[in-house]
Amino acid sequence: MEILVFDFGGTQGRCGLASRDGKLSRVLRLQRSNGEEGGTWFERLLAAGRGIVSQQTRTVAVSFGGPVATDGRILSMHVAGWEKVDLRGELSRAFRLPIVVENDANCGALGEFHFGAGRGKRTIAYMTVSTGIGGGVILDGKLYRGAHGMAAEFGHMVLHPGPNAPQYAAGKPGVLEALSSGPAIARDARAKLAELKLPVPEKLTAKDVFDAAGRSENWACDVLGDAIGHLGRGVAAAICAYDVERVVIGGGVAQAGKLLFEPLREKVAAYIPHYLAEKYDIVPAELGDDAPMLGAVALVADV
Amino acid sequence: MEILVFDFGGTQGRCGLASRDGKLSRVLRLQRSNGEEGGTWFERLLAAGRGIVSQQTRTVAVSFGGPVATDGRILSMHVAGWEKVDLRGELSRAFRLPIVVENDANCGALGEFHFGAGRGKRTIAYMTVSTGIGGGVILDGKLYRGAHGMAAEFGHMVLHPGPNAPQYAAGKPGVLEALSSGPAIARDARAKLAELKLPVPEKLTAKDVFDAAGRSENWACDVLGDAIGHLGRGVAAAICAYDVERVVIGGGVAQAGKLLFEPLREKVAAYIPHYLAEKYDIVPAELGDDAPMLGAVALVADV
Repeated sequence: MEILVFDFGGTQGRCGLASRDGKLSRVLRLQRSNGEEGGTWFERLLAAGRGIVSQQTRTVAVSFGGPVATDGRILSMHVAGWEKVDLRGELSRAFRLPIVVENDANCGALGEFHFGAGRGKRTIAYMTVSTGIGGGVILDGKLYRGAHGMAAEFGHMVLHPGPNAPQYAAGKPGVLEALSSGPAIARDARAKLAELKLPVPEKLTAKDVFDAAGRSENWACDVLGDAIGHLGRGVAAAICAYDVERVVIGGGVAQAGKLLFEPLREKVAAYIPHYLAEKYDIVPAELGDDAPMLGAVALVADV
Repeated sequence: MEILVFDFGGTQGRCGLASRDGKLSRVLRLQRSNGEEGGTWFERLLAAGRGIVSQQTRTVAVSFGGPVATDGRILSMHVAGWEKVDLRGELSRAFRLPIVVENDANCGALGEFHFGAGRGKRTIAYMTVSTGIGGGVILDGKLYRGAHGMAAEFGHMVLHPGPNAPQYAAGKPGVLEALSSGPAIARDARAKLAELKLPVPEKLTAKDVFDAAGRSENWACDVLGDAIGHLGRGVAAAICAYDVERVVIGGGVAQAGKLLFEPLREKVAAYIPHYLAEKYDIVPAELGDDAPMLGAVALVADV
């Protein structure tokens, strides 16, 4: 069985063909132009899919970068114009094939569970730390969606109680996303540099902060100490909630490697109740950008 | 089918007979004497059960006040001498009937789900707030235990990041149990009264603090504002984790009624992401002390 897979994101999109065992081929990557309207962007992604779909294609599987209703309508999106799209309906008209849609965090969890860092486990939490913080969980071998498809919203847990808790995008003050996402790390780094009267570069990303920490620069180590501490409480909260065997961390920030994972494991160990100690591990995602597409494959391939 | 049910707690114990549809009869309540050794206390509870078991009894169902291994051994207990007890083995020898054992928080969740405040829902979180804070979850109609039977440990989520985060019993600093349990409320109330140079009563419980808040005494309102704020973040974290339809709150502190539930609902609404707003409700438990026993019944009655 051949599957046409899409990864619909707000800034990037991909499509490709996949076999049931997770081999991807003919993968196309598209970049949304600055200010490109949602409908046009959507049409371009569809056109890319039409270019590779074949007589052997039996299903269309979609990982979508935002909440999707059970009827396949897009519930919320940073892309102007997408909130009106009947995702499943449009895909169905375009390809006349069965359509499966799931949000990207759940797809990422499924991908890592079946084809990546979660292989061999029954119960895992997947957390993606980049521009935002999202998540998905596989409990007793099955994707757990929640009553409204919104489970595992780790980025929206309020982990900072203070009246001065930082805020980020549309989230509430003090949510994990406002404390440990890439933009949160960059924001805190700029503030720390300014506080220390050090030069603040015009462009500064979380990667720059990790690089500086790798050179043992104190300001960067301080900023990351806080951000990873908060992330550690988020991971520990997920372990307390689900009692998982493994936490898989993906997303851009996870590419910092041991500069992230070594302190993170220490922090989580300090936050976890003693009877859960050593009952879990925390590992990097293995599939990178392919996780959501492979998760979408797992949705239909019944692996 | 008649079921012999036990509720084994560290200070109180109960046993009774139950029908499959959750009717309890011949309920006996025992109180552990001060300093009574774990083995003796256990024997007294067994003896009470022997006094009521009948020819019609087909199963023994046990709610246990602490973590229990999948093989039925007690994993940890505040009662000296209980950590050695082979719970399932002893019960099996005493009654020569099939034995089902589950921890009390999971039993409470099952009880409320099948016979109490969770009836008619598919996905609920149950949180018990008293001396400690425990929990259990029913996801898509089934008790979710976690990989090691330790899921839904809400009381152990670290929700206070500060270096001066309060600590309580064996928990880590800043865990929810150290912020919003009955003893945490009483501790903060004593500190607040001392700070205001008001008389500090020799005995002061969370109930006294709620009573004072009911009389609009400022010190009590302040203390509860903080404690309920933290509890609100714990409840919101549970909703973010599981996307439940309903949160059921039981335990001694929940008996404060609207003095707890009105501000708690407000706090949770302030902490929850907008797309989960109004997708859940927060209600008091209905079964009181009977919840764990009725949950144990549900375990075997296949309701």
